[in-house]
Amino acid sequence: MPKELLKDIGEKELINRLAEFMPNKQVSDDCAFIQTKNKNLLVNTDALVENVHFNDDTISAKDIGWKAVACNISDLLSSGCNEIIGVNIALVLPSTTNWIWVKDLYTGINKALKHFGGVILGGDCSVGKDKIISMTIIGKQGEIKLRRNSCRPKEIILTTGIHGLSKLGFMIRSKDNFDYPITLSQSLIKKSLKEFCKPKPKPKFLKKLLKARPNKRIKTIGCTDSSDGLFQALLDLSIESNCKAIVDYAKIPKHKDWPTGKEWDEFYFFGGEDYQLVFSLPRKWADNLLRANKNITEIGYFAEGIPTVNFKNLDNNKFLEYKCFSHF
Amino acid sequence: MPKELLKDIGEKELINRLAEFMPNKQVSDDCAFIQTKNKNLLVNTDALVENVHFNDDTISAKDIGWKAVACNISDLLSSGCNEIIGVNIALVLPSTTNWIWVKDLYTGINKALKHFGGVILGGDCSVGKDKIISMTIIGKQGEIKLRRNSCRPKEIILTTGIHGLSKLGFMIRSKDNFDYPITLSQSLIKKSLKEFCKPKPKPKFLKKLLKARPNKRIKTIGCTDSSDGLFQALLDLSIESNCKAIVDYAKIPKHKDWPTGKEWDEFYFFGGEDYQLVFSLPRKWADNLLRANKNITEIGYFAEGIPTVNFKNLDNNKFLEYKCFSHF
Repeated sequence: MPKELLKDIGEKELINRLAEFMPNKQVSDDCAFIQTKNKNLLVNTDALVENVHFNDDTISAKDIGWKAVACNISDLLSSGCNEIIGVNIALVLPSTTNWIWVKDLYTGINKALKHFGGVILGGDCSVGKDKIISMTIIGKQGEIKLRRNSCRPKEIILTTGIHGLSKLGFMIRSKDNFDYPITLSQSLIKKSLKEFCKPKPKPKFLKKLLKARPNKRIKTIGCTDSSDGLFQALLDLSIESNCKAIVDYAKIPKHKDWPTGKEWDEFYFFGGEDYQLVFSLPRKWADNLLRANKNITEIGYFAEGIPTVNFKNLDNNKFLEYKCFSHF
Repeated sequence: MPKELLKDIGEKELINRLAEFMPNKQVSDDCAFIQTKNKNLLVNTDALVENVHFNDDTISAKDIGWKAVACNISDLLSSGCNEIIGVNIALVLPSTTNWIWVKDLYTGINKALKHFGGVILGGDCSVGKDKIISMTIIGKQGEIKLRRNSCRPKEIILTTGIHGLSKLGFMIRSKDNFDYPITLSQSLIKKSLKEFCKPKPKPKFLKKLLKARPNKRIKTIGCTDSSDGLFQALLDLSIESNCKAIVDYAKIPKHKDWPTGKEWDEFYFFGGEDYQLVFSLPRKWADNLLRANKNITEIGYFAEGIPTVNFKNLDNNKFLEYKCFSHF
């Protein structure tokens, strides 16, 4: 099939083609119109930049589209969103970009929106040196507000799943960086690639949380997602809630074939691009939730004290000093 | 003063500094929370890319910040927004960017928000090759829906002001491109630079429109902004409303010192980055509006026919063929 480059098809034609991915084809106006029925909203923006967050060697355009939606949805879910309204997309692309790449990107975006809810509302596109997908997502605030600053001492720390897999998936795909003298199980490789290429935030989490709630007066709980890694999530909760996280290393859930060793702990805690939720609950609520949901794990508790992340059952935890996940 | 580069200050510190520009300093959570009181919303995204929409030689960081807000607000106003809620900003910057540049950008953004309304709600930042400011703005839909597809045959075409000035301002600033053998008046130079650096969309337009309305049953009118130039605005209205624009060249409002000639007509109609509104109204409504507002001008009318832009009182209008404003 001949390559069809954006510089050949032109901006107007590109906009028309992208409009085909929008259910109401709101190409007529620049603005998107949203009907809201007295619901408070949550808004989040995440930008994915070529050679920073992705590159064509490690991930397909379809998977980038999926991930762009997933990472935004993860942020909304971590604030207690109960319905996705839609996304606005700012696309910056080199004029030599192949149309098929853009089409695949939007196919991946719509596949994720079909799975999680919401539609493409509108956006903007422009030429530029890097490929950039900046996505703003809008959703409705559900009954419980999940906030980073709402953890309290004595609350149980929980997480919705396993960390580190996305980082391992990335390393497997970018072979240059991956020369550990270890044979990984096929199950671990498969799961890691899935987490890296097609992460699945947990839209049903809020319902489970509400079902397990022992006291309807509690309207706010402490929560964040682990998109910058589990350690950063714990640190953010500690700092914003002004309390000390005590994490039991022995309770941390790992893939059954996850290797041991310092590097593997680093991948686990600092890898990032994990779209799990990390949150805290009063004992009774936590017990109700744990009883009904086998994938949710208790990993520690909050205590009064200087905002830090402390480990139990970890012999040499010096490596777990403050490490900041920074792109700069 | 020593240069302080982003790669030296790091991502976390950058995020903390940018949070100072947010009134509610919503740095704690990724998501922004919006209280809506049963109002329908308008959402718009525009991305400004270095060396496509701006460069450091022609415009200051403060003015870029102002313009990023202004171009988004222009889109909201052209849909009938009556209150700006706020903006989410995705910032992509080279790690060698000077902190002062970012600070100036955000100062300009907040200056514009103070003028037009709204606040910085949140955003994301990442490293990248080009400087990119992608802004998503959210506002409330007012009583009248302004839409591109709502012009009707026999309606009068009007515009809120003069076009072409922004393009001239850009050419004056980028001296390489500007060697016309013409001496421009100081008044024209000053006005053009102002329109280029600090465009002012018209937030009071909607109130004026409502005040002049002879019949409260009319809830929708045809409108767009002229950010891609006056010609493109007229063409968009024609296409989306499926009617023919008849424009009287003799009525087009120009700066009193605007030179004559084919090039100058091209700058006028195709220059772009004009943030005027171009709209159509029934005769009576148009007359009421024109009587009360000297800056609004009647420039033609819509008729039944194939969607095109046609000129009266223009001898040689062949140059005004379909020209697409394209960045690719």
